[in-house]
Amino acid sequence: MNEAILENQMVERLARAFRRSPAQVNRLNESDAEIVRLGATNTRLAVTTDSIVEEIASGLYDDPRMIGWMAATVNFSDLAAVGAAPLGLLIAETLPPDLSEDYLSELQRGIDQACCANGSYVLGGDTNSGSALEVTGCALGVLEGEKDLSRMGCRAGDLLYCSGFLGSGNAYAVSRFVSSRTRYPFAPRARVREGQMIRGLASACMDTSDGAITTLDQLMRLNGVGFQLNDNWGMALAPGSEEIARLASIPPWLLLAGQHGEFELLFTVAPSREQALLNQAALENWQPIRIGEVVPGQKISLEVYGVTAHIDTARIRNAAFAAHGSVAAYITELIKIDQGLQKGDSHHGKQ
Amino acid sequence: MNEAILENQMVERLARAFRRSPAQVNRLNESDAEIVRLGATNTRLAVTTDSIVEEIASGLYDDPRMIGWMAATVNFSDLAAVGAAPLGLLIAETLPPDLSEDYLSELQRGIDQACCANGSYVLGGDTNSGSALEVTGCALGVLEGEKDLSRMGCRAGDLLYCSGFLGSGNAYAVSRFVSSRTRYPFAPRARVREGQMIRGLASACMDTSDGAITTLDQLMRLNGVGFQLNDNWGMALAPGSEEIARLASIPPWLLLAGQHGEFELLFTVAPSREQALLNQAALENWQPIRIGEVVPGQKISLEVYGVTAHIDTARIRNAAFAAHGSVAAYITELIKIDQGLQKGDSHHGKQ
Repeated sequence: MNEAILENQMVERLARAFRRSPAQVNRLNESDAEIVRLGATNTRLAVTTDSIVEEIASGLYDDPRMIGWMAATVNFSDLAAVGAAPLGLLIAETLPPDLSEDYLSELQRGIDQACCANGSYVLGGDTNSGSALEVTGCALGVLEGEKDLSRMGCRAGDLLYCSGFLGSGNAYAVSRFVSSRTRYPFAPRARVREGQMIRGLASACMDTSDGAITTLDQLMRLNGVGFQLNDNWGMALAPGSEEIARLASIPPWLLLAGQHGEFELLFTVAPSREQALLNQAALENWQPIRIGEVVPGQKISLEVYGVTAHIDTARIRNAAFAAHGSVAAYITELIKIDQGLQKGDSHHGKQ
Repeated sequence: MNEAILENQMVERLARAFRRSPAQVNRLNESDAEIVRLGATNTRLAVTTDSIVEEIASGLYDDPRMIGWMAATVNFSDLAAVGAAPLGLLIAETLPPDLSEDYLSELQRGIDQACCANGSYVLGGDTNSGSALEVTGCALGVLEGEKDLSRMGCRAGDLLYCSGFLGSGNAYAVSRFVSSRTRYPFAPRARVREGQMIRGLASACMDTSDGAITTLDQLMRLNGVGFQLNDNWGMALAPGSEEIARLASIPPWLLLAGQHGEFELLFTVAPSREQALLNQAALENWQPIRIGEVVPGQKISLEVYGVTAHIDTARIRNAAFAAHGSVAAYITELIKIDQGLQKGDSHHGKQ
């Protein structure tokens, strides 16, 4: 399922050297966090690691509080996508020797604030000295009981939801790299509570750490299904994000395609369970947004320029991977993909 | 207890920003791995993270298999020092874009081999692209039952043991940086089995990841005791390590002082439990080495140049910290400390 996606190829190549633990529940790529059985009990651990490296090197993140916040949030978001209750976070930091005390204390503050926002704590860490700042988090969570939530399990006919507005991550990136006006505000909260709520209700779930379209592409390949977004998918865009895109001459649908995600959960639910989901959500004052449905056939389609287009999601994902950190090369390739859609490439019957 | 040690000052400064989890059992610095209670059960998790960064940047580690082996081993060694049974390892890698396939596959092989040596597995990871290779591990382990093993608990009169020969890490470093002859072989095995064996028998334990003297210094500060090495401490030096030191004109005691440790366990045991320890060890064909005893008063002393000297362990630790990766500056400072001992500084009554 992964031959078309350069990133998946790399992950499989890296993982090939490793034997698999008999205690591990999930297979490679099938879950946002790794799930490990703990002895003979029903308790399972969810563990995940994620680093903030390219975001710092490229200048996308230049504020220490934000770097700290994101280093924690990206990891809690992986716990959210499997419905785990956070136990804590480990932090490994590579610090340049000339980092100021103020910078460092803002970095630490951002980490702690994101832990606090997720009802969790830093448990410990490691500090190293190096030329470039890097922050690696490792989050631990617990799953009690039998209910499962992973990337696997959606079927044609299921409804597609997102946990909140989409596009804020890419709007932030556009405001950093393309237009030089004020920054689009970006401080995503990991959907830890919502993940726990939908465990047992959703048929599949994945966080949008790499943007909505990459997430759908991965779910498509894993489950052998496709996704059709509702014609009013634009309603799911974060307030003000379209305006940021417009000012930068970026078409709004690229807010779903860019790789700087918003750390929402994309999840699917069988129609028979939709009401239970909505009841549960209402109890917690949460408004998940229905944005489409699961369809047969591995295609991802949405209405762009007045027609329903099949999106070449492999090309979109590979553009990010092949750009090797060059923001300009990446945006150029996305714009090319958009121009193809404007010319009518990939159009599909429904007009 | 930490005002004299620059590294401890930094750790405390970094940790100050963080709230502490009510589920966390250990306090800051008191344990090689963080210990977290899991719900209301007797099961506790041991978690730790450690990165290989300076060792690569300085050229100390230049072989990918070794880098992988060490990235896993340093983390399993922290689990060993709390007596935990490993559950698995997460690996976060920052890879330069020009890394060859062969290099990468050797790196992965080293990680997997070290997992295998500890009866464990890679559970998952994250990969980033960056200018300098960095490998961060995060190990998870389980502690069942009530027995504890941490850095805390040794008392004057306890016996001091190491789990195996000392000095191999520093002999390797000397063979890399000082003498240009063949490398001293170095592929330490984390003492995971031994750590589990001594849990409930040892009064305190810490791994020698930063060398034997740094380990003793930390145990001294935490427990308010001192350590007196036996006059025949040289018997505990790894075979061939003294020869490496001699060729490089490095006095043998610096094999204990250098910061590139050997990942043995230094542990203490009450005299009343020594026989139980030795019986247990014999059953498993393990020969721990008795190298000294715990004494009242925060001093570390050993026989050097025919007299028993109090070693200025704070100066030794701070030399490594202040050198900021400059191997030459660090070795120069160690040699100065040695010259002081030769001149008779810090000598103590017993001649």
